[in-house]
Amino acid sequence: MNYQSYFLPYAAAIDRFLTNFFQQKTREARKITPVAAEMWRKLQKFIAGGKRIRGGLVKLGYECFGGKNQKAVLPLSAAIEITHLGLLIHDDLIDQDDFRHHQPTIHRQYEAEHQQKDYPGDPFHYGQSLAIVVADLAYYAAISLIATADFGEEKKNKVLNEFSHYIVKTIYGQALDVDLGYHSRISEEEVLLIHQLKTAQYTFVGPLRLGGILAGAKANDLRRLEKYSFPVGIAFQLQDDILGVFGDEEKLGKPVGSDIKEGKNTLLYTEALKRGNQKQQKRLRALWGKRDLTASQREEVRWLIQETGSFEYSQKLARQLVEKGKKAVPQLTENKELQAVFLSLADFIIEREK
Amino acid sequence: MNYQSYFLPYAAAIDRFLTNFFQQKTREARKITPVAAEMWRKLQKFIAGGKRIRGGLVKLGYECFGGKNQKAVLPLSAAIEITHLGLLIHDDLIDQDDFRHHQPTIHRQYEAEHQQKDYPGDPFHYGQSLAIVVADLAYYAAISLIATADFGEEKKNKVLNEFSHYIVKTIYGQALDVDLGYHSRISEEEVLLIHQLKTAQYTFVGPLRLGGILAGAKANDLRRLEKYSFPVGIAFQLQDDILGVFGDEEKLGKPVGSDIKEGKNTLLYTEALKRGNQKQQKRLRALWGKRDLTASQREEVRWLIQETGSFEYSQKLARQLVEKGKKAVPQLTENKELQAVFLSLADFIIEREK
Repeated sequence: MNYQSYFLPYAAAIDRFLTNFFQQKTREARKITPVAAEMWRKLQKFIAGGKRIRGGLVKLGYECFGGKNQKAVLPLSAAIEITHLGLLIHDDLIDQDDFRHHQPTIHRQYEAEHQQKDYPGDPFHYGQSLAIVVADLAYYAAISLIATADFGEEKKNKVLNEFSHYIVKTIYGQALDVDLGYHSRISEEEVLLIHQLKTAQYTFVGPLRLGGILAGAKANDLRRLEKYSFPVGIAFQLQDDILGVFGDEEKLGKPVGSDIKEGKNTLLYTEALKRGNQKQQKRLRALWGKRDLTASQREEVRWLIQETGSFEYSQKLARQLVEKGKKAVPQLTENKELQAVFLSLADFIIEREK
Repeated sequence: MNYQSYFLPYAAAIDRFLTNFFQQKTREARKITPVAAEMWRKLQKFIAGGKRIRGGLVKLGYECFGGKNQKAVLPLSAAIEITHLGLLIHDDLIDQDDFRHHQPTIHRQYEAEHQQKDYPGDPFHYGQSLAIVVADLAYYAAISLIATADFGEEKKNKVLNEFSHYIVKTIYGQALDVDLGYHSRISEEEVLLIHQLKTAQYTFVGPLRLGGILAGAKANDLRRLEKYSFPVGIAFQLQDDILGVFGDEEKLGKPVGSDIKEGKNTLLYTEALKRGNQKQQKRLRALWGKRDLTASQREEVRWLIQETGSFEYSQKLARQLVEKGKKAVPQLTENKELQAVFLSLADFIIEREK
């Protein structure tokens, strides 16, 4: 079984679950105030287009330890995806991004409504305030989904504890990412620490462990998952950063080059600085984080990253990490079908175009 | 027993618990990154000075239904207070407030650090980004506290479900408050709906119910609590709004008049508009929400609110609601000592100066 045939049908099941959930919440909220109903409607619309990798990994971790009840794992996968949505909304606000999933970001959507409704005052502040609040709503919606799911009281608490533990790590990563964004020089170690906290832990390690806990896995067995999920998780972020600079705008659903304009902390950038000659360094520093970057300047950045060998370095490292993760697969499960999913997922991570 | 002798020693116990909790988290986080440790340190410092009403009400609800184990209820009270802190941090950001608890607000603290560290870029954006993230950290810290507390698996899930349920309502109230802040005219019903969602449910109904659930109370019995907690909760907010315009700056720990500058949705304002003559209405509209309000203009607003009878109206309504809540007290518990606490708390709500 390959990644697609395992993940895609389950992604569709998660999406059906989410649609029902959001529709029900919208109906309930409408009785209180239309403003609340609109928040749920926005969440429902904005979640469309995600890859459901985290939700799918929960199921994979669950089945890896013999879990067989898809009905039990589905609300947990949905809860992870809703939490992810909340974190993305805050992330978009922090990065001042305009687009995600082929849609305006939530703060931009509210900003536009402020103008359509001809409200007085500052549309930016209106958009920002409601985006903060909508993300908070997503967080607590996910908690209530887990707390009311039908998978045994003790397991639920273990899941919630693990879940809050790794979201805390994600938040550390987010804060570090913000802070280092204001440093004039950051190291490869610092970039990789962000990737570890904000991506590997959050996108791979955590969801797989949650699924394992739901299936009743022991602490030692859960730890084995990390030999796969940490390296593959870092590779996932390296590929994300490559796509952020070199990817196809149509496929990504957001403008390529926003990583450059935001001055994102990526290995592509730190490595290019390290390898470049003085002139290249100076030019890269001038362009990385330039809010009004032109198309030709974007091409220049691409060229600098390639010319210094930084592009190849990131790509090679991602490939090495994926290979490292793949070597751990036989220890994860004896189920050959699931092994094949782990292997093909690892390859997909660095081959994907979105 | 009166309110003070019941609440104050317990507030001190909550504070000791919080100090230990935050210190431990700070130590753990320091091993990962100083940026994370600093977030915990900020939370620890910023939580000082709260009244711990919500945490105390958890205990009161618990004892109301025969709960006797203070060690079990303490982590839940602490978790409620930490969540409250997170919501306040986002609230301060939305209101662009500069001070709370005699300290600069979290976004202002980070803003100042940006300048001290001589970081490049926008200090406002730095402060704002990290304040968003610090509040998120508070939310998940609270979840992990509840999920690992020592009060039985089934009760924990019931508590978490109730908790996420009422925080969702609080968030509805927050969103409605933001949205109505941009309307040119809002009704008494709308203001009271905000107060119900954002204050009564959140500050009184929810914490009392949580304590009841922890003591094993049934759904019907929990509903009885609402006859007290809804009216007293609304009265609490009315008094808050009165203090926000007429209170003593030193006692409040934040500038008096910020409610006016922010154009806060209060009954004081809507009622004064309703009662005022055309000239008074016009003047009030011009001053309410004026960011650069002078001291003499603040006095003018105070005068308008008193002159139109709006001040008296709010004060009288708060008193009526408190009396209504007090009448329900005999149905809450047969314990005379706890009855006395409920009664004196209700009086305190409208007598307090901070």
